[in-house]
Amino acid sequence: MRKVILGLGISLDGYIARRNDAVDFLFMPKDYVPSFGQFFKTIDTAIMGRKTYDVAQKMGGTSYGPKIAMYVCSRKRPAGERNGVTFTRQSPVALIKRLRQRDGKHVWLMGGGELARDFLKADLVDELYIGIVPVLLGDGIPLFPRGFPQRNFVLVENKTFSKGLIALKYERAHSRKKKT
Amino acid sequence: MRKVILGLGISLDGYIARRNDAVDFLFMPKDYVPSFGQFFKTIDTAIMGRKTYDVAQKMGGTSYGPKIAMYVCSRKRPAGERNGVTFTRQSPVALIKRLRQRDGKHVWLMGGGELARDFLKADLVDELYIGIVPVLLGDGIPLFPRGFPQRNFVLVENKTFSKGLIALKYERAHSRKKKT
Repeated sequence: MRKVILGLGISLDGYIARRNDAVDFLFMPKDYVPSFGQFFKTIDTAIMGRKTYDVAQKMGGTSYGPKIAMYVCSRKRPAGERNGVTFTRQSPVALIKRLRQRDGKHVWLMGGGELARDFLKADLVDELYIGIVPVLLGDGIPLFPRGFPQRNFVLVENKTFSKGLIALKYERAHSRKKKT
Repeated sequence: MRKVILGLGISLDGYIARRNDAVDFLFMPKDYVPSFGQFFKTIDTAIMGRKTYDVAQKMGGTSYGPKIAMYVCSRKRPAGERNGVTFTRQSPVALIKRLRQRDGKHVWLMGGGELARDFLKADLVDELYIGIVPVLLGDGIPLFPRGFPQRNFVLVENKTFSKGLIALKYERAHSRKKKT
């Protein structure tokens, strides 16, 4: 089955961006590039929220080339293809159901936090792929804003890279409803 | 110099407790006990906020024995020794200055989040020793509530233990004011 992988870099205090949307604190050290490349090979679809899309557009675009189908979830904007992405007003449940009706690789949930929360509410996140950089920002836009039910995970990978980046992979603990 | 080490276990979304103060999601696997013991040997003083103290009292007490001097920071309660702890109305800066006038081991800042924020605001946190358990709570009491300036750290240790606990040690990057 096509998995939904929430994959993002965050500060140690859990922010995906500063209050002004800047992500200057994030970095990808050289020794991490192959790991990211491995991850990237496993996906063929990316989903992001409208705010994340707008920020990415301002910073120079969102395309990963023709091999990656890009979806932008927005309740306000008209559905349809524009600028190489597909805007959709479908709920996360409906969108993932539709994507799973076709064969394909995994689905990268790129954020932001509000969309991640919608996906976690609907229990649609199968894996987490989180990079943590060694900084406390003190304020920002959280990856996990409060307001979804507890979700247990199983750690499957914990690697340390240059400059103190750590990369964590978790799988949803579907079979363990109690404490894991 | 005696270091101030902020040491706590958190959920993957950064909570030290549930909204109702419960910490049932935290655990200390057997293979982690020696690491905690090593840390514990390096400290002789522990500082906590008044709310954390009250919760600990409800759960059966806060004493680590006569070898650990316990301080509770409270603006409201009278200063002085009670129940094996020393209540203090001193600011974090004044308290740490006072503690550093004596020789001794390191100082464990046990939380909660509001006191951690006060210490981070005053740039008094020399090290972080964070355990992350593999659960997203979706709500709770954050270790790093928003509202302090950016603080850069250097990762010095990242270890994986049973049941998906990871333990991270960071040192304050005093010499690197830019991105680390």
